[in-house]
Amino acid sequence: MNDSTIVTESTKRYKWVGTRPIRPDGVPKVTGRALYGADLKLPGMIYGKVLRSPHAHARIKSIDTAAAEALPGVKAVMTSKDLPEQKFDYIGPERVAVNFWHVTRNIMAREKVLYEGHAVAAVAAVSASIAEEAARLIKVEYEVLPHVIDVDEAMAEDAPLLFEDMITRGIEPAPKKPSNISKRLEFAIGDIDKGFAEADVVIEESFKTAAVHQAYIEPHACVAKAEADGQIEIWSSSQGHFAMRALTAQIIGARLGDIRVTPAEIGGGFGGKTVTYLEPVAATLSRKAGLPVRLQMTREEVFRASGPTSGASMRVKIGVRKDGTITAMEGLYKFQAGAFPGSPVMNGCLCGFAPYDVPNQRAVGYDVVSNRPKAAAYRAPGSPIAGFAVESVLDMCAKAIGMDPLALRIKNVAGIGSPTIAGPKHAHAGFKETLQALANHPGYKAPLGPNQGRGVACGYWFNGGGESGATLQVNADGTVLVATGSPDIGGSRASMALMAAETLGVDYSTVRAIVADTGSVGYTHVTGGSRVTFATGIAVVTATQNVIKDLCRRAAMIWDVDPEGVVWEDGHAKPAGANVGDFKPLSLKELAAKAAATGGPITGSAGVNPGGQAPGFSAQFYDVEVDPETGHVTILRAVVAQDVGKAIHPSYVEGQMQGGVVQGIGWALNEEYIYNAKGQLDNPGFLDYRCPVASDLPMIDTILVEVPNPVHPYGAKGVGEANICPPMAAIGSAVSQAIGKRMTSLPMSPPRVLEALSAG
Amino acid sequence: MNDSTIVTESTKRYKWVGTRPIRPDGVPKVTGRALYGADLKLPGMIYGKVLRSPHAHARIKSIDTAAAEALPGVKAVMTSKDLPEQKFDYIGPERVAVNFWHVTRNIMAREKVLYEGHAVAAVAAVSASIAEEAARLIKVEYEVLPHVIDVDEAMAEDAPLLFEDMITRGIEPAPKKPSNISKRLEFAIGDIDKGFAEADVVIEESFKTAAVHQAYIEPHACVAKAEADGQIEIWSSSQGHFAMRALTAQIIGARLGDIRVTPAEIGGGFGGKTVTYLEPVAATLSRKAGLPVRLQMTREEVFRASGPTSGASMRVKIGVRKDGTITAMEGLYKFQAGAFPGSPVMNGCLCGFAPYDVPNQRAVGYDVVSNRPKAAAYRAPGSPIAGFAVESVLDMCAKAIGMDPLALRIKNVAGIGSPTIAGPKHAHAGFKETLQALANHPGYKAPLGPNQGRGVACGYWFNGGGESGATLQVNADGTVLVATGSPDIGGSRASMALMAAETLGVDYSTVRAIVADTGSVGYTHVTGGSRVTFATGIAVVTATQNVIKDLCRRAAMIWDVDPEGVVWEDGHAKPAGANVGDFKPLSLKELAAKAAATGGPITGSAGVNPGGQAPGFSAQFYDVEVDPETGHVTILRAVVAQDVGKAIHPSYVEGQMQGGVVQGIGWALNEEYIYNAKGQLDNPGFLDYRCPVASDLPMIDTILVEVPNPVHPYGAKGVGEANICPPMAAIGSAVSQAIGKRMTSLPMSPPRVLEALSAG
Repeated sequence: MNDSTIVTESTKRYKWVGTRPIRPDGVPKVTGRALYGADLKLPGMIYGKVLRSPHAHARIKSIDTAAAEALPGVKAVMTSKDLPEQKFDYIGPERVAVNFWHVTRNIMAREKVLYEGHAVAAVAAVSASIAEEAARLIKVEYEVLPHVIDVDEAMAEDAPLLFEDMITRGIEPAPKKPSNISKRLEFAIGDIDKGFAEADVVIEESFKTAAVHQAYIEPHACVAKAEADGQIEIWSSSQGHFAMRALTAQIIGARLGDIRVTPAEIGGGFGGKTVTYLEPVAATLSRKAGLPVRLQMTREEVFRASGPTSGASMRVKIGVRKDGTITAMEGLYKFQAGAFPGSPVMNGCLCGFAPYDVPNQRAVGYDVVSNRPKAAAYRAPGSPIAGFAVESVLDMCAKAIGMDPLALRIKNVAGIGSPTIAGPKHAHAGFKETLQALANHPGYKAPLGPNQGRGVACGYWFNGGGESGATLQVNADGTVLVATGSPDIGGSRASMALMAAETLGVDYSTVRAIVADTGSVGYTHVTGGSRVTFATGIAVVTATQNVIKDLCRRAAMIWDVDPEGVVWEDGHAKPAGANVGDFKPLSLKELAAKAAATGGPITGSAGVNPGGQAPGFSAQFYDVEVDPETGHVTILRAVVAQDVGKAIHPSYVEGQMQGGVVQGIGWALNEEYIYNAKGQLDNPGFLDYRCPVASDLPMIDTILVEVPNPVHPYGAKGVGEANICPPMAAIGSAVSQAIGKRMTSLPMSPPRVLEALSAG
Repeated sequence: MNDSTIVTESTKRYKWVGTRPIRPDGVPKVTGRALYGADLKLPGMIYGKVLRSPHAHARIKSIDTAAAEALPGVKAVMTSKDLPEQKFDYIGPERVAVNFWHVTRNIMAREKVLYEGHAVAAVAAVSASIAEEAARLIKVEYEVLPHVIDVDEAMAEDAPLLFEDMITRGIEPAPKKPSNISKRLEFAIGDIDKGFAEADVVIEESFKTAAVHQAYIEPHACVAKAEADGQIEIWSSSQGHFAMRALTAQIIGARLGDIRVTPAEIGGGFGGKTVTYLEPVAATLSRKAGLPVRLQMTREEVFRASGPTSGASMRVKIGVRKDGTITAMEGLYKFQAGAFPGSPVMNGCLCGFAPYDVPNQRAVGYDVVSNRPKAAAYRAPGSPIAGFAVESVLDMCAKAIGMDPLALRIKNVAGIGSPTIAGPKHAHAGFKETLQALANHPGYKAPLGPNQGRGVACGYWFNGGGESGATLQVNADGTVLVATGSPDIGGSRASMALMAAETLGVDYSTVRAIVADTGSVGYTHVTGGSRVTFATGIAVVTATQNVIKDLCRRAAMIWDVDPEGVVWEDGHAKPAGANVGDFKPLSLKELAAKAAATGGPITGSAGVNPGGQAPGFSAQFYDVEVDPETGHVTILRAVVAQDVGKAIHPSYVEGQMQGGVVQGIGWALNEEYIYNAKGQLDNPGFLDYRCPVASDLPMIDTILVEVPNPVHPYGAKGVGEANICPPMAAIGSAVSQAIGKRMTSLPMSPPRVLEALSAG
């Protein structure tokens, strides 16, 4: 057990919200019965395989599929020719909003392959081994081109260009001739020069971070079944089956209504399963073969061809007065987008300074393509990268003025009314309370030994709102079913059931939540952006309130009184006042048993698009010890405080906090993509791509700081992402303190630490 | 193509309702891609097998499962001890309402086995062959008891008793001592003796019908997956996944909310898949094994252990004046219930005389158990049986007074205000119009050759209403999804989509309908009783109207006007009048694209419990030719007219009419259960149980008579069942005319016809 604390400013008391029932997804998962993307087997199902580029950058001169098609057992072969071309620069409809000209090229290469592992063709055959053999029989003629991996090198004047005619978009001054820079961003408030002039100390430093993968346990997998009349069913493990439907529809040229996607249990996503790689390919193979097709990635394919987050090159400059007042913050962020435009550099620009109340801020960002897999979202995408640079420089500032680094942050913490680089004033409380809770942790004053260091950092994430659908069914025995469109990656079935039970006033054990398919519930955005407990929670509460209205109407019918004369309290319909009449309150169970006679099934639905989500904030400190002989860093202590609004199910919230921290520790110390000279990934597996395992980690102490979000009926804020932002800088600062050298590059793996130790 | 006619009194003109788009279930079915109950394969899934009684009647002295449990590969063995005992005579809650004390004994025998094929134990093992071997290893010690098969023999004084202490319930005078008669019913209106006294001719005759099976192509099959924490998922082919949930929950002792049932495509049900045989067994085996279990019946098991409809012994007496006025009708109906009480004898009592306006009626019914599988619903359960007797006697009456048998029926046809034996006055038009349409068929006057005969009969069915749920989703591209809880056995996906398209005013091709699982849509009664187009149709129209209300609200938001100022017409939101403002109408597609900005996903649901369904009525005539040497009957012509309300999708309606007729022809000419002296079924397969095949049949002409049902938004009446009622009597009368001998016993198979020909 971890040392878990809840610091609450919540004044409302709930019966179910805030309790810790056994997780409904727990038993199926630990007993191996949960059904993941690759677990479905249909009659007549065949097996797909994607042929991938061995080159980092090459022109496709020809693809000859004849030998593959002739192999007995092969039922379908496809290339990009089987996918409709998208209009140049076509950005899909609002709910999808990605550049489909790019996306379809990432799904399957057209003119060029842009990274090792880039899909070139695909086959489907009666067995996986025949499919593999058929893929090998496809002859692709390549003209190999020079490649570029590193973001700084990709921005160089003479860099090989991925798109020969790509002109930088965005804020001037941007390059005027074709380059690998797809976009330049700039955000500023106040007067940055004046701000630095007002500072007593100005510190500027450069940083580099490595591309890291989301490293979900479950590789991408799906089954598609296309009928000859255009109907398509897809079973898929993803963070959003509605997104998979929208992306697949646009890429293969189908209507939304013709595709039904059923969500599988998901074995981790962390942002990387908000995008599609396989569904359009499986659907196309199924269309051609007339048979259901299963397509799943190997672990190598996951590393080579699915999205890591960006590696980056950054420079951050901060000015601070001797009393700790930050006068100016400036950042330059160059983010790898991978092979197609679209890194999270804007998030980096907007999040890096967001925890602080600083009048003068400026951020410049570059989105840069290079011969790597296209970056995908990864937990608070962009924020942890910028945070590494910003929080490291803040630590340097604290050291420079001799101030406790946590005290420095408390002095400058953002609160209601603080300016933000995005424009609107900061509107939420919770950051200061979180910092104070962290400062109160007894470990923060504990003495350190030799080769040890302590580091502090903060992290910010917007958190998401947006569209969600939910339905509620009351069964004849009074049990309740909640269905939403949100794949459950962090315990949402439990939290939805808790909120429904609380709203209805019934026992939690009588409420079950499921994730419904795209044909059975209202459109719901992806499970991402820490939006589900907030937005889908509001959908569930709204659907529940609709049902309660109906229950009161039924009680009124039974009592023969006006519906307005009935209120719902504590799980019962009651007369609103003595004037209504003297009726015995009717429980949900009693009303459920009378459903047929009072109008039929008790059912309710809701579709919502709430704003008002509160941003997430996490503050953490780490104690580390560095082995000066090997450069190995041991995490001795990790303490994470987070502004959680109201923890609907505190155990899951603690799990989110610990999970984000573990991923951050991996990012800080070990994880990186290692490319050889040919631009090929050298470590596409969990033996060489080193994620932290339990023995690498201390128990991670959690402090849940509850400052309720007034917009949510139970005060919830998103809790999934801010926690991954601080570890890199906090550990970096701790290592720097331990070895007396500032660490500016990730990962801080033993060779890098040794290098730093041996440097002048 | 058949000769299909639509005679319509419908004055409303629709754009989609009444059209014949390609069926959405057609392509998956004919290409073999549709997923039926046995098609799902889950990881770790094991295979169940039920051990069944070889005896028609025996006491179970002991069951020894040790050897089976010891067999390697066996994961679970169960007997009735693994199912909780039900309270004696416990009738489940309103939505289920069956005698669970009986049902649990039918699922798995307790004290006694009551028919050959009665389930005694079940096993689950890693392969089907190991499961079969394990079932053979279960040692059951039986004390064989005398058995009884025939209904008249079962009613005899000295008959072996299935339940030694069963006292007849119902209307006096009922037997006072234990017998096999579970219930005596009596219904009467008018003065039956006075009625017969007023008649010029009184004809009385006895009849026997054989038990016949629904003969669905797909044997019962399901997969159950029980988690250690009590959650259970079931995939099942049935006529009602909500019913499977309710029955399974009660039988295994679970809560409704803990069971989620997902409907498979269904390969025919005809009433026989409204009951459960396998789901509670599979769920129990899965609970014990901790693994998913597939259980499916062989064809032999289907015949031996799933429900046929009752065989019967009947006596009917009708009095008629020379002008054709029927003065009195009396019926005595003795129906086999099978091994447990519950034949459709009440329906027989209520339906037999229902097509006619007769002041004096009396019906007495007996529900009689015998050592046969428990009867299950079969298309208009009970009505075709009584109809065979009543309509045969009517034919004899027509002959006796020298009146055309169709003219006799037209003279006495029931209409609005006619008395009914059940009490309430008949409230619907349509019967007379149907008879007249049949009389207008040119074939009715066509001359007959030697050994040929023509027979006429009518049939009545209540049709059902009751609870249904539906949801509607409008996708971002304007396509529409309709989800209901009604398994589609007769084209309901098409009719639901047609009604939604009509109501919304959008193109049918943009609307797709699915059958949602029990967690995703409001409670819905079984697909049975010809209730779906009526009741689930009303749920869909109501959900659509809820969505239209929401669409108008969104248009009002966009135009910044009052929601009352917006109307929905022809697929567009429009200003209600010039005073509202001059706004360009907004199409569904336009509003769908603006969903996010106007409140989020466009979603609606409805739960309804409508009454007001109109009864179904069918009138048919057949021309037959009898081969005097072999006794073989050839159907030369079959013409079926039916009161269909409004045919939502006429091709499916024609299919229902033709399907009912084909089943009736089989019932008339060939189908029967043949028992040997030990009470074992001798013909449990399609080679020996002779269903009609295409080469046995003429093309069946259909006449759809549309007299709209005012209670349904599009005038629909149930169309699935009344059509099976007339064939037996009509063909019986035709054969009787051809051979000059009245046929009073079913089936009229060649030996029986030869027997009649050779009799004095």
